[in-house]
Amino acid sequence: MVEFQPPRGTRDFGPEEMARRRWVEDLMRSVIESYGYREISTPTFESAELFISRSGPQVVDQMYLFKDKGGRDMVLRPELTAPVMRFYSSTLKNLAKPLRIYYFGNCFRYERPQKGRYREFWQMGLEYIGKRTPQAHAEVISAAIGALLRVGVPELRFRIGHVAVLRAILKGVGLDPEKDRDLMIAIDKKDTSALASRLAHLGGDIPSKVAALVTTTYSLEEAPSVLAEIGKMAQTDLTGPIDELTMLFSILVSSQGTILFDPSISRGLDYYDGVVFEADIPSLGAEKQVCGGGAYSLSSLFGAEVEGIGFGLGFDRIIVSLGDLSPNRSDNVGFYMVPLGRTAMGLAFEGAALIRSKGITCSMETMDRPLKKAISSAVENGSTHLLIVGENEVKEGRFTLKDLRTQVQTTISPDELRILLEKLSKVR
Amino acid sequence: MVEFQPPRGTRDFGPEEMARRRWVEDLMRSVIESYGYREISTPTFESAELFISRSGPQVVDQMYLFKDKGGRDMVLRPELTAPVMRFYSSTLKNLAKPLRIYYFGNCFRYERPQKGRYREFWQMGLEYIGKRTPQAHAEVISAAIGALLRVGVPELRFRIGHVAVLRAILKGVGLDPEKDRDLMIAIDKKDTSALASRLAHLGGDIPSKVAALVTTTYSLEEAPSVLAEIGKMAQTDLTGPIDELTMLFSILVSSQGTILFDPSISRGLDYYDGVVFEADIPSLGAEKQVCGGGAYSLSSLFGAEVEGIGFGLGFDRIIVSLGDLSPNRSDNVGFYMVPLGRTAMGLAFEGAALIRSKGITCSMETMDRPLKKAISSAVENGSTHLLIVGENEVKEGRFTLKDLRTQVQTTISPDELRILLEKLSKVR
Repeated sequence: MVEFQPPRGTRDFGPEEMARRRWVEDLMRSVIESYGYREISTPTFESAELFISRSGPQVVDQMYLFKDKGGRDMVLRPELTAPVMRFYSSTLKNLAKPLRIYYFGNCFRYERPQKGRYREFWQMGLEYIGKRTPQAHAEVISAAIGALLRVGVPELRFRIGHVAVLRAILKGVGLDPEKDRDLMIAIDKKDTSALASRLAHLGGDIPSKVAALVTTTYSLEEAPSVLAEIGKMAQTDLTGPIDELTMLFSILVSSQGTILFDPSISRGLDYYDGVVFEADIPSLGAEKQVCGGGAYSLSSLFGAEVEGIGFGLGFDRIIVSLGDLSPNRSDNVGFYMVPLGRTAMGLAFEGAALIRSKGITCSMETMDRPLKKAISSAVENGSTHLLIVGENEVKEGRFTLKDLRTQVQTTISPDELRILLEKLSKVR
Repeated sequence: MVEFQPPRGTRDFGPEEMARRRWVEDLMRSVIESYGYREISTPTFESAELFISRSGPQVVDQMYLFKDKGGRDMVLRPELTAPVMRFYSSTLKNLAKPLRIYYFGNCFRYERPQKGRYREFWQMGLEYIGKRTPQAHAEVISAAIGALLRVGVPELRFRIGHVAVLRAILKGVGLDPEKDRDLMIAIDKKDTSALASRLAHLGGDIPSKVAALVTTTYSLEEAPSVLAEIGKMAQTDLTGPIDELTMLFSILVSSQGTILFDPSISRGLDYYDGVVFEADIPSLGAEKQVCGGGAYSLSSLFGAEVEGIGFGLGFDRIIVSLGDLSPNRSDNVGFYMVPLGRTAMGLAFEGAALIRSKGITCSMETMDRPLKKAISSAVENGSTHLLIVGENEVKEGRFTLKDLRTQVQTTISPDELRILLEKLSKVR
C-alpha cells in the first residue's frame, strides 16, 4: 500500500500555501534584485566530497548520501554556499567584480522534524564578491534587513559582530577561540556565568567584566564607546576592524529595524574572518534565527582567491513567522465565462482568449452546470466579472456581463470588452 | 581533490542563463494562471514505492534510489504526476471541482546526457480535475498551446488523438493494443510499412489502407471526414469519442498554431483513456517532443476516483528551442550610485534606498574605484542613470545625475529624484 503522505519532514503545498510562499519569495527577490543582485542556480545533488571536507560533523551526519548508478557518492545538498563557491571557482570568477549573485533553493537534512525545521527546506542566499569596503558591508546587510522587513516579519533583531574583535578579546585574556569548542559554545549561548568561570584564573572583577562585555548586545549609538573600550583592552591592534565597524554602524544607524552590536557572534571561525551577523525573529522561539552571514576571504578555495560577504535566509522560518498574513488580493479582477450550450463555445472561447491575452484570469465553466451553480462557483473562486454566452448572445454577438461586486448586469460586445479590459489592466 | 564541475548530466546556471529561464518560466506561468490554474508543490523525494508500482520499466531503471537514515527506500522524483495524484488523494480532493492546478519542478533520471536530455530536468505540468467536457479539453489544450506560443517557440506541431479511437481501429482488424508491444512501437514511430506487414493476413488493400489511416496526421478541416470513415469501419460504437473530437476540433479550429488530428497517439494506455495529445518543435530534431498529455479517469488511485485532463511540458527542451532569444530589456532603467569618500555615504545610501523602494535597481559603487572606472562598470552592467555624491553634493544636498543614454548631466535634489522615479516607474 502506497502511503498517502509525503515523506516525514517534507511537505506538500496546496494552492493557498503556495500562493503565500510565492508572494513572500517574490517580495524578497524584488528587494535583493533592486540592489543589483542576479540569480544563479546549482544542481540539487552534488558529489559528496564537496560537503564532507567542508561542513561541520553535525551537517555531515544529517546528509542524504547515495550512490548513483555509476557508483559515485552523491548527496542532496545540505546547504547552498559550497555549491555556489564551486560554481564561482569554475566559471563565475571570470565575471566582472564586484560580482553580485543570489540564489533560492531547497536543501536537505535528515533532522528530527519540528516547527520551522524540515528535512526539505528552502534558503535564499546572496554573495557579494569583491573588495570588502564598509559600504559593501552596509549594502549586504541592508539587503538582508530590507528583504525581511519587506515581507513584514513581526519583529526583527539584527545583530552585527566581528570575528577579529571577538578573537582579540579572547586571546587578550589567554583563551584560544580556535581550539576551545566549549568556550565558543558558551559564548554562542551568551552564557555569561559559564564564560566568567572559564576566566576565573584572571582574578578580581576581570572575569565578570569580560564575560559581560562579550555576551551583551549594544545599540548602534552605544557601539562606538564599547568599541573604544575593546580597542584599549585588546593586546593586538584592532584599528582596522574597529574602524570598519564604526563606519558600517554610521551608515546603518538610520536604517529601519532594530540593529545591534553583538560581539559574541562567531559563526564558523574557519570560514568567516571579518564582520559577521545574525538576525532573529523573537516570536519564533527556539528556532528564531532566520539569517546568518558575514565577510570571508578564502585563499585555498578550489585554488581561487575569493573575498566576499554573504548571507543565507531561512525561508521556511520566515514563512512561519508571518502567521496568517496573506497576499492582498482585494484589487484583483477575474472573469468567469459561462457558455450555455454547444453553439456558445466559439464566442465564449474568443472572449476568454481576449481576457487572458491582457494578463487577466478568465476561468471557464467547463462542467456544463446550471447557471446558478456556475455563478456560485465564480463567486467562490473570487471572480469579479461574470460573462454569459447563450443563444441570444450568440445571435447578437454580445456577452451578458455581470459585475459580481455590484450585481449590475448589462450586455457588451467584444469591442466593448476590449475597452473594459484596457481600463481594468491600467487600474491594477 | 573536489571536482569543479557539477555532476554529469546536471547544470549550473549563471546570471544570464537564469534570467532567460525565469523569463520563460514566468511567461508560461502567466498564461496558465490566466486560465485560472493555481500552483501546488510536492517534495523533491518520495517513497520509492510510489513510482515503482506505477511507472514503466524504463523509468524505474533510471531512478535515483536511496535509503534514508531511517532505512526507508526513497527516490528522487522521476516525474511529477504520481506525487501530484498522491497529494490529490490525501488532500486536494476536498477542494471544489473543477480543480485547476499546475506545478513547476525538477525531476531526476539517470540517463545518458545529451542536448535536451539531462539527469536533472524541469517540467511544468497542469491538471484539470473534474467533468471531462469538450470545453474542458479545449481549455487544457489551449493552455498548453498558449504557453508554448507565448514564449515564442520557433514552430509548433500540436497533435491530438483519442485512445478509444485507436483502440477501436486496431481491435477492428484483430489486433490487441493492450498486449502487443511491438505493434504499439510501430504505431508510435508511424512506421507505415511495419504496421502494414503486421496486417498482411487481412489480404487485399486493407493492410495498407489501415496502416496509412493510423499513421497519417490530418488538418482539423480534414478531421471530420476521417473520423466519419473511422466510425464506419470500427466494429464498436465510436459515437461518443468521435463526437468528443468533432466538438473539440470545432472549438480549436480558430486557434493559433498548427493543430493536427493524429490517430496514432497512444501514450500510456493504462493511464489515459480518452483524448490524448503531444506537441513537437520540429527544429529540436530527435528530442523534439515538448508536451504530452491527455484525459484520464482512474478509479483505483489511492482509493479516490479521479477524472481529469492534464499535460506536462519539457521546460529544458523549450529553452533549447528558443536559441539565443532573450528577455527584451530595452525599456529597463537602472541606477548606479557612486559615493566619493566617506562623507558621501549617508546621502548615497539614502538615495539608493529611495530608488530601490520604487522597485528600480540601484547598484552601488562599493569598490572605492576612481570615477572613470566606476562609470565604465555602470555602463557594463546596463545602468541607464548615474548618480554621483562627492563633497559638493553633500554640502548642497543634491546628487549629480548623468543620463548614460544621452550623456546629459545635471544636479537633482532628493525630492526631484523622487519625482523622476515616479515618472520612470510609470513608463515601465
